[in-house]
Amino acid sequence: MTMSDRAYKRIATEEAFCPPEMFDIYRRIIANNEIDDPGFVSQWRYFLESDSERSVFVREALCDLGDKRIADMDAAGIDMAIIALTSAGIQPMPGEEAVEFAAYSNDRLAAAIKQHPTRFAGLTAVAPQDPTKAALEIERGHGMGLKGVIIHSHTQNKHMDDPSYYPIFEACQALDTPLYIHPNTPVKGMAEPLMERGLDGSIFGFAVETSAHVLKLIISGVFDEFPNLRVVVGHCGEAIPFWLYRLDHMHNAMVKANRYEGVKPLKKKISDYVRENLWITTSGMAWAPAIEFCQRVLGMDRVLYAMDYPYQYVPAEVGYTEAVNISPEEMKMLFQTNAERVFGLT
Amino acid sequence: MTMSDRAYKRIATEEAFCPPEMFDIYRRIIANNEIDDPGFVSQWRYFLESDSERSVFVREALCDLGDKRIADMDAAGIDMAIIALTSAGIQPMPGEEAVEFAAYSNDRLAAAIKQHPTRFAGLTAVAPQDPTKAALEIERGHGMGLKGVIIHSHTQNKHMDDPSYYPIFEACQALDTPLYIHPNTPVKGMAEPLMERGLDGSIFGFAVETSAHVLKLIISGVFDEFPNLRVVVGHCGEAIPFWLYRLDHMHNAMVKANRYEGVKPLKKKISDYVRENLWITTSGMAWAPAIEFCQRVLGMDRVLYAMDYPYQYVPAEVGYTEAVNISPEEMKMLFQTNAERVFGLT
Repeated sequence: MTMSDRAYKRIATEEAFCPPEMFDIYRRIIANNEIDDPGFVSQWRYFLESDSERSVFVREALCDLGDKRIADMDAAGIDMAIIALTSAGIQPMPGEEAVEFAAYSNDRLAAAIKQHPTRFAGLTAVAPQDPTKAALEIERGHGMGLKGVIIHSHTQNKHMDDPSYYPIFEACQALDTPLYIHPNTPVKGMAEPLMERGLDGSIFGFAVETSAHVLKLIISGVFDEFPNLRVVVGHCGEAIPFWLYRLDHMHNAMVKANRYEGVKPLKKKISDYVRENLWITTSGMAWAPAIEFCQRVLGMDRVLYAMDYPYQYVPAEVGYTEAVNISPEEMKMLFQTNAERVFGLT
Repeated sequence: MTMSDRAYKRIATEEAFCPPEMFDIYRRIIANNEIDDPGFVSQWRYFLESDSERSVFVREALCDLGDKRIADMDAAGIDMAIIALTSAGIQPMPGEEAVEFAAYSNDRLAAAIKQHPTRFAGLTAVAPQDPTKAALEIERGHGMGLKGVIIHSHTQNKHMDDPSYYPIFEACQALDTPLYIHPNTPVKGMAEPLMERGLDGSIFGFAVETSAHVLKLIISGVFDEFPNLRVVVGHCGEAIPFWLYRLDHMHNAMVKANRYEGVKPLKKKISDYVRENLWITTSGMAWAPAIEFCQRVLGMDRVLYAMDYPYQYVPAEVGYTEAVNISPEEMKMLFQTNAERVFGLT
């Protein structure tokens, strides 16, 4: 099916790239034991060193912001890709290097978008290591036409449920630009019990890490502080939609019992923040039952299509996603108009 | 609605009790720092010491195997309860004490069932600390008429994806008696990053711990070794059903890449084991969208009703569960006949 046969554009909203220099930095970080992050080390040792078909393809495709990527998009029937620096991004780097590399990477991405303005859009990568400079980079990226911000969950084992990170949320809210909280391998303690059976990565640990992080943000009151902050979460919301009923029930019980210093009353229910401040994408979840479930419990306007190129480049999955049992108007929301609205594409 | 108005019995399949002596043992374990399990310590310090309405009710109701429990069942319209020793059970105890207390607790439960054979059934608690003695206790419990086995996920930070635990699975398979893998607070490393925002307990950490444990069992090949082993998992399968598509895709990728020593080819897909070896209950998930999703992706015969008394004693939730959009025959499966078949009730 070509674009002209379809009543909608296919916009893929969680697509990854990587300047090749980042591979060298990762190699150095791993070789020198610069960070205490076993999930990162395991994942990137694999992607950098393995000669498996998948990792060879990922290495090559990540670094392309031109013809190869566009050919793969064409082959899969993707009209537009919202591209962001791949996980774990600049977050494993030392602070100053991270700030510099964020700017370098964002410049590279903005230049590629300028060359292919109808096929590419992009997100601003930032270094949460320095929240004030991250806020400045969010403004700079926005000025260059980037359409949101990406952060790959924890930064060297730290989550952002601490007021020191507020400059990042403040900048996103002020510019009304969405923050994509993308997975990372879990923080050190959580990764270790999962690694023996390979559960630290995208099969399971990614979702645990990211859903925990988003829930920590909600419970800490970030969305009471920044009520117009808009957050995007991939992989059908990292299973948060599945837990809405239980999250409300148990959060209410915890608050009533006053059991935790870090769990205080919020203005709204957890599910309210999920339905009002979160949007989710279908990256890696080309499965009608899960997509339809999320549409049912969050609303048709909260679910956006994503492919997760190059990690899950399976052209047939476009068809699996289009097997969802929704109206043509709703299909257009899923593939096109929700993304246009959330990311301010024109 | 009384039983006579209904075309089915309501059988609640994940209901908890506790001999009062276990509270004293837990107090001692916590006071003496006998185990390195921060989730357990946080949870039981709360339930043992808090004067919140919820914990006072839980303490009292856990210890009752008679009139109070039956009155609460009547008030909620529950005809029969499948009762098991509460989490974390005997698993935090030193080995010998655990083996002894398992037998003591199972005797207490079997005696209460004898007094109320139409209202109560029960599961055998075992001490995974000593798998051989656990296997013997499984046989003994089965001989006393108990209808399955309960294990509360990790035992002092150890999961059962190691052949040293095979005697437990072997005994369950040989007797064709189901193993209920009930939540526990997460293993040490996983609990700690969650505790600050109260996510270590039943709101989130329970599910992470239990789903990780079940996936580790599947990936380790336990169900290739014991193809007729039947496992029951609460809380709508701890979100495993939500992840079926992604689990298959990523497990296949991991096996192909030969990335992990502990991830070898299996005879079937992850989703096959979930659909063939697992049954799930609705404990704590009285929410039609999640229940209907699970019925859709696992099959109508895999989902069993549960209340989670006394932790979630909300009589109105029976009605929420009955709001699922299924036929009267399927409602009978959900509330009665699936439980009768899985637990061999007659």
